[in-house]
Amino acid sequence: MSVQKMILDVDTGIDDAMAIAYAVADPAVELIGVISSFGNIEADRAATNALRILNLVGAPDVPVFIGHQNPLDHEYNRLPINAQIHGENGIGDVQLPTPRQAVATQNGVDFLLDAAQRYGDDLTIVATGPMTNLAAALNQAPEVMRQVGKLTIMGGALTVPGNVTPVAEANVEQDPVAANQLFTSGLPLTMVGLDVTLRTLLTKDETAQWRTTEAGTKMADIVDYYINVYADIYPELGGCSLHDPLAVGVAIDPSFVETISLNMLVTTEHDPYYARTIGDKARLNAPQPNVKVAVSVDTDRYLAVFMHHFNHLFR
Amino acid sequence: MSVQKMILDVDTGIDDAMAIAYAVADPAVELIGVISSFGNIEADRAATNALRILNLVGAPDVPVFIGHQNPLDHEYNRLPINAQIHGENGIGDVQLPTPRQAVATQNGVDFLLDAAQRYGDDLTIVATGPMTNLAAALNQAPEVMRQVGKLTIMGGALTVPGNVTPVAEANVEQDPVAANQLFTSGLPLTMVGLDVTLRTLLTKDETAQWRTTEAGTKMADIVDYYINVYADIYPELGGCSLHDPLAVGVAIDPSFVETISLNMLVTTEHDPYYARTIGDKARLNAPQPNVKVAVSVDTDRYLAVFMHHFNHLFR
Repeated sequence: MSVQKMILDVDTGIDDAMAIAYAVADPAVELIGVISSFGNIEADRAATNALRILNLVGAPDVPVFIGHQNPLDHEYNRLPINAQIHGENGIGDVQLPTPRQAVATQNGVDFLLDAAQRYGDDLTIVATGPMTNLAAALNQAPEVMRQVGKLTIMGGALTVPGNVTPVAEANVEQDPVAANQLFTSGLPLTMVGLDVTLRTLLTKDETAQWRTTEAGTKMADIVDYYINVYADIYPELGGCSLHDPLAVGVAIDPSFVETISLNMLVTTEHDPYYARTIGDKARLNAPQPNVKVAVSVDTDRYLAVFMHHFNHLFR
Repeated sequence: MSVQKMILDVDTGIDDAMAIAYAVADPAVELIGVISSFGNIEADRAATNALRILNLVGAPDVPVFIGHQNPLDHEYNRLPINAQIHGENGIGDVQLPTPRQAVATQNGVDFLLDAAQRYGDDLTIVATGPMTNLAAALNQAPEVMRQVGKLTIMGGALTVPGNVTPVAEANVEQDPVAANQLFTSGLPLTMVGLDVTLRTLLTKDETAQWRTTEAGTKMADIVDYYINVYADIYPELGGCSLHDPLAVGVAIDPSFVETISLNMLVTTEHDPYYARTIGDKARLNAPQPNVKVAVSVDTDRYLAVFMHHFNHLFR
């Protein structure tokens, strides 16, 4: 099995924390760096959270970089809903030790472009926050970004309603201008959106299995916070959505999902359709659509692999 | 090859006229009746137009029934846009002889239910207008409707914007309450929406081929009216959409399209998301989704079959 070099672009965030853990646990991945974004929390705190989680899962040497701290066209302001869903500290208000390592001094976008230049087709990028860093990298050096082997995002909603408005998903809604630049760039892209992540659920039956170690207990505490919030906000689901770790899983093994190919755009007008991810009528019949949208998921198999990895981390 | 008994539910309409012609021309189909709906034009004029088209394509003995004349929850009012797209008379303002036969006296919904009772699994229903007649039949005798072999609609838009509003397609927008009843009924349903019909285009290069007979010339005149309107309204497409005849084609040969399975609903609240066809979050993880949504189409093969049928009708 060839090992994929992977960069995660996260706004850590509880499901981002699980995405980091998944990438560390999967032997098919060499996690070469983590970039932080604003979103669930401010970018600098997202970076510190990423370091804390990397420590927790035994990967303290993975470097963490801070990316863009604001959307391309406005100022970031953390919304109360983000503190509600992820906890004030972004990781379920669970206290983790201060990281041994500091956040790297290089800018996240520069790190991304250096890696893209160096590894090209061997590099996999998974973004589980707003697409601001990706759009910035694309604007800075499109020809370098075109060499990246695989680009997978958690974001958007095509066949189901959004989770911020009836049409807008949270990661896209944080910076629709950036998302639109990415979607319309022609860059091959896999979209793991609410279409599939709302079908991939975790319950306390699963997190209880991690409570055999101290680290596992901390991770279970973090995720249980998220499960409790989901029980309040989305009682019909019966669990919490594995948004971000599913995107990592799909980047590693695309056969977890079925996809449809579509040329897409993101609406950026400030009207009720703001931040919608939808087919681009003007390019509907253009050949070789650049976005593969995941529309169904083998939930049972994914959850089995997810639990295999997490049980391995926390045994 | 087994012959499918088919009922068309139309609001004739230029592309409805093509749908009728396609069903008459395809030897895999026995068209046992046509029901009319309000939509592109009033239901009674839609019925007369259906008779005219049946005469034109040499099938004057197919009975035509008038269905519901109004949406379930409001009064029908023909919009100027419908006269613009389909002509004041609904068939491109082309004059066709007064039909020899009269419209049948039985109500369209009763005819539909009688046929469903009689033919059950051998019956195919294709609705290319609002879903009012189908919803009425379902409300009147759900157990009878559940016996119908195949139910295909032209309507809705899942992966692309609507053609009335950014989320609403015209057939659904005419009666979203009826559409929602159908979509949430659990009845197996194939949705042929703008997702695929905007990719299936006809130009005057094709219609010119029918001008070898008087009937073919009339049909070409009708469709050319539609092509001219499309050139004005949707210049980016480069032709007119074969909305309704594609639905007939897919009902006959499902392999023209790829589909995804989804439990769906139609939004009926009077807000900017009115008449949207979208995944039903509450039933996202429910087993055996009832709607198959066409998301891609083998345009070349479909167009070849379409032209084979039409060239055969008009030679």
